Amino acid sequence: MFEAAELGREISKSDYKAQLPDLRAEILQTQFALSKSNRPVIILISGVDVAGRGDVVNALNEWLDTRGVETFSFEKTSDEESERPDYWRYWRSLPARGRIGVFFGAWYVEPIRNYAYDKIDAACMDDSLGQIRRLEKLMVDDGTIIIKFWLHLSHKEQVKRLKKMEKDPNALRRVSKRDWKHVKLYDRFSAAAERAIRSTDTGDSPWLLVESTDPYYRDLTVGRTVLETIRKQLELDAINDSDNSSDNASKELTTSTQTSNLDTTDSSPKAALTVLDHVDLNQKLEPKEYRKQLKIYQGKLNRLVWAANAKKRSTVIVFEGWDAGGKGGSLRRMTQAMDARLYQVISTAAPTDEEQAHHYLWRFWRQIPRAGHFTIYDRSWYGRVLVERVEGYAKEHEWTRSFLEINNFEESLVNHGTLLLKFWIHISPEEQLRRFEEREKIAYKRHKLTEEDWRNREKWDAYKIAVNDMVARTSTNYAPWTLVAGNDKKFARIQVIKTVCKRMEAILYS
Amino acid sequence: MFEAAELGREISKSDYKAQLPDLRAEILQTQFALSKSNRPVIILISGVDVAGRGDVVNALNEWLDTRGVETFSFEKTSDEESERPDYWRYWRSLPARGRIGVFFGAWYVEPIRNYAYDKIDAACMDDSLGQIRRLEKLMVDDGTIIIKFWLHLSHKEQVKRLKKMEKDPNALRRVSKRDWKHVKLYDRFSAAAERAIRSTDTGDSPWLLVESTDPYYRDLTVGRTVLETIRKQLELDAINDSDNSSDNASKELTTSTQTSNLDTTDSSPKAALTVLDHVDLNQKLEPKEYRKQLKIYQGKLNRLVWAANAKKRSTVIVFEGWDAGGKGGSLRRMTQAMDARLYQVISTAAPTDEEQAHHYLWRFWRQIPRAGHFTIYDRSWYGRVLVERVEGYAKEHEWTRSFLEINNFEESLVNHGTLLLKFWIHISPEEQLRRFEEREKIAYKRHKLTEEDWRNREKWDAYKIAVNDMVARTSTNYAPWTLVAGNDKKFARIQVIKTVCKRMEAILYS
Repeated sequence: MFEAAELGREISKSDYKAQLPDLRAEILQTQFALSKSNRPVIILISGVDVAGRGDVVNALNEWLDTRGVETFSFEKTSDEESERPDYWRYWRSLPARGRIGVFFGAWYVEPIRNYAYDKIDAACMDDSLGQIRRLEKLMVDDGTIIIKFWLHLSHKEQVKRLKKMEKDPNALRRVSKRDWKHVKLYDRFSAAAERAIRSTDTGDSPWLLVESTDPYYRDLTVGRTVLETIRKQLELDAINDSDNSSDNASKELTTSTQTSNLDTTDSSPKAALTVLDHVDLNQKLEPKEYRKQLKIYQGKLNRLVWAANAKKRSTVIVFEGWDAGGKGGSLRRMTQAMDARLYQVISTAAPTDEEQAHHYLWRFWRQIPRAGHFTIYDRSWYGRVLVERVEGYAKEHEWTRSFLEINNFEESLVNHGTLLLKFWIHISPEEQLRRFEEREKIAYKRHKLTEEDWRNREKWDAYKIAVNDMVARTSTNYAPWTLVAGNDKKFARIQVIKTVCKRMEAILYS
Repeated sequence: MFEAAELGREISKSDYKAQLPDLRAEILQTQFALSKSNRPVIILISGVDVAGRGDVVNALNEWLDTRGVETFSFEKTSDEESERPDYWRYWRSLPARGRIGVFFGAWYVEPIRNYAYDKIDAACMDDSLGQIRRLEKLMVDDGTIIIKFWLHLSHKEQVKRLKKMEKDPNALRRVSKRDWKHVKLYDRFSAAAERAIRSTDTGDSPWLLVESTDPYYRDLTVGRTVLETIRKQLELDAINDSDNSSDNASKELTTSTQTSNLDTTDSSPKAALTVLDHVDLNQKLEPKEYRKQLKIYQGKLNRLVWAANAKKRSTVIVFEGWDAGGKGGSLRRMTQAMDARLYQVISTAAPTDEEQAHHYLWRFWRQIPRAGHFTIYDRSWYGRVLVERVEGYAKEHEWTRSFLEINNFEESLVNHGTLLLKFWIHISPEEQLRRFEEREKIAYKRHKLTEEDWRNREKWDAYKIAVNDMVARTSTNYAPWTLVAGNDKKFARIQVIKTVCKRMEAILYS
């Protein structure tokens, strides 16, 4: 999950300074509109230690009109508070309609910390998260806009900051023993945070992962997200209101405010980085080495497949990737090594009538393998958050809630004991073009290239963002994504089959 | 909870026969409209043993066009099923859009049975219920209409039926040892069912408790509910569609079908019984006996209040009831016995500006007592499902989701260790009239009678239904409602104070 927030996104100081005045003006304008509305706003700032939660809150307080904001840090529980039910302290702090509450961590702090400290088990953690979902649902149902930020730092960056703070006599806060203890528990905290985020990342109150190494990027991203989330909701409300009153004048007003001068981040290319930009596409395998490794891993896979069958462990493998990325080739190199009775390949194309008449996950549930068997999906349920999102086949509220639905679905597979592997085969747009042109030339490959492929190609950037969100929200510790470097087909094929062998070995002989 | 389904509701055979033809015609007509829509329907039939789940399913199959219905009983798990994740068997059975799936028990059977058998603990049960909520939400989000019935029989009636079946050589099914085992576990099954119903009784997929002693009443209630739920949803869809297309012709069509000839159950008064009809209003106390008991219980209460304070247990008491029912009098007889430093009485009137600007539960969260203290609410959060429902201040989707919100709220009080007591003071409409007239005559009481009281009185029947729903959905084993017989004020006062003493004793000395 957090790999999507370790991409080196940054904004230069001069860009930051250039963008700030507009942002601030628009934030104030939107806050004024909010104050006339009947919606409370909760901005929840969570994240790893020393990621700058306090700095972000300070920035927000500087940018917002303080008369409409309150900040709550929920430090130690007072006796007043401990004598009441757990959530009493949060209820008393909820902002009124038209006002903004900025919350430090709030209801996420204790479950994450206690789980990382091993003070509570998974069941108890999930119980707390269930309570959180109910609380947030109750607030959203009542009109509250909830904006949840997770400020992320890599382990390395965290250590670097603490060391720098220790050396700096003027640092604003002292480094404590607890800080170093937390650094040691980095992986445990990560796992706890992932669990919390995954199970509370609902369509109504989604999480936003913010890469926090560069403070300019961090603060600007938070500010812009706050602005856009509130503005979008108020605009929707205005449209609904004007629909109800059928008042054309106000309708026009709404649409005119939708054109904003803040949508462009193009000025700073580094801020638009995605997880795909970190795949090293130069990786290659020489033909000889390829043939050697293929032989080794196909043999290994064959043995593992029979072992899994004997142990009645089933496996689900998902292939996603760019058109002409080489999904089929990688898939075949695997199935060559498998007994035909043990696997089934599902090529996911446009849904049938019957499939269309059911929930989008239904067609995939149907194909779940029996004990000891394999189902390999050539494209999958991730179509919901890729093609359906980019092409607008699914509405925004539909695909945003899919992340949680997909995580729940995959969790039930894994809980049943199924091994789940997910591959995104990545290639560069140049390599894709080369392959398209090649297909056009070679007669027996020509059928593989359609008009649609050319159309999809034009939406490369939109797909990149969709892939990034997909990885950020569905790469879980029990079902991580593997991003495969696909420019060299041979390298990609070995990466896939090797990964499958490794994960199977780990699950069968642990 | 189940007290609302032990009221002796029945319909005569002749009434049943008279109503059936219209109902069947309308069901078929609605099913036809459904088949053209994009909504799947799930009818879930659960309930206690021998309540007639099979008979209800048979009736539905007779009434519906079988070409659009499928029935699933989910008996023993097949090997096909046990080799896949838990919910696979349900996913493969989900109805397509426009079709109806009738499910026996389905995902509720195992959690309830295992909890009743003591095979799983509360945490594990709640985990299963959380999964169920997510599954149902996913389906509702996708457009599914879920109608969940719980067919209830009292313990006595269950035993009676089993004995009759044992004697009848022509009974359609044999009584087994397991049946008698379940009878012995009646209370455990009740508790399990209550827990399941309470935590899955969402606004989107609510439960319907059906009193099942009389088969005519049972079948007609199920049939009518199915009809009305589907019809209402299709009508809403039509209105939304015509709003979007701004097509006036279709709009008119929609409203014209809304007048139905099936709304009247007036023909059978016994079917309109509510929990309030079972309160024996003839109960009285002689003045001498009243004074004696008052003295005893006030003394007892005083000692208990100090004991609770010493043990740091806090208490919340809720008073609801008809206008002029005597809430204030009962309340004062209690507080007379309490130290003024230890309790706070909150008279809930129209919300203040500040309260209006928050979630409706916010104003009540504020007043939650500190450890060892008391908060007594003279009217409470139940206004949401009483006055706000009846007067239309809250929209239907708002007050229907409140039941779950209220149960969650009360659960967090009780989990914190707070004792929660809820009283509805019941009087007859005749007694109310007598008291209103008395108030008009006596100068110092006149201020207590307002125009609003007279208006509320006209809505007596609507309030009765609201109270019945409230008790059915929020009388939980951890926070049961006490329905107080209030025609005799003396009797009511003693019933209240005695109940408080009993519950406090149980919680303090257990």
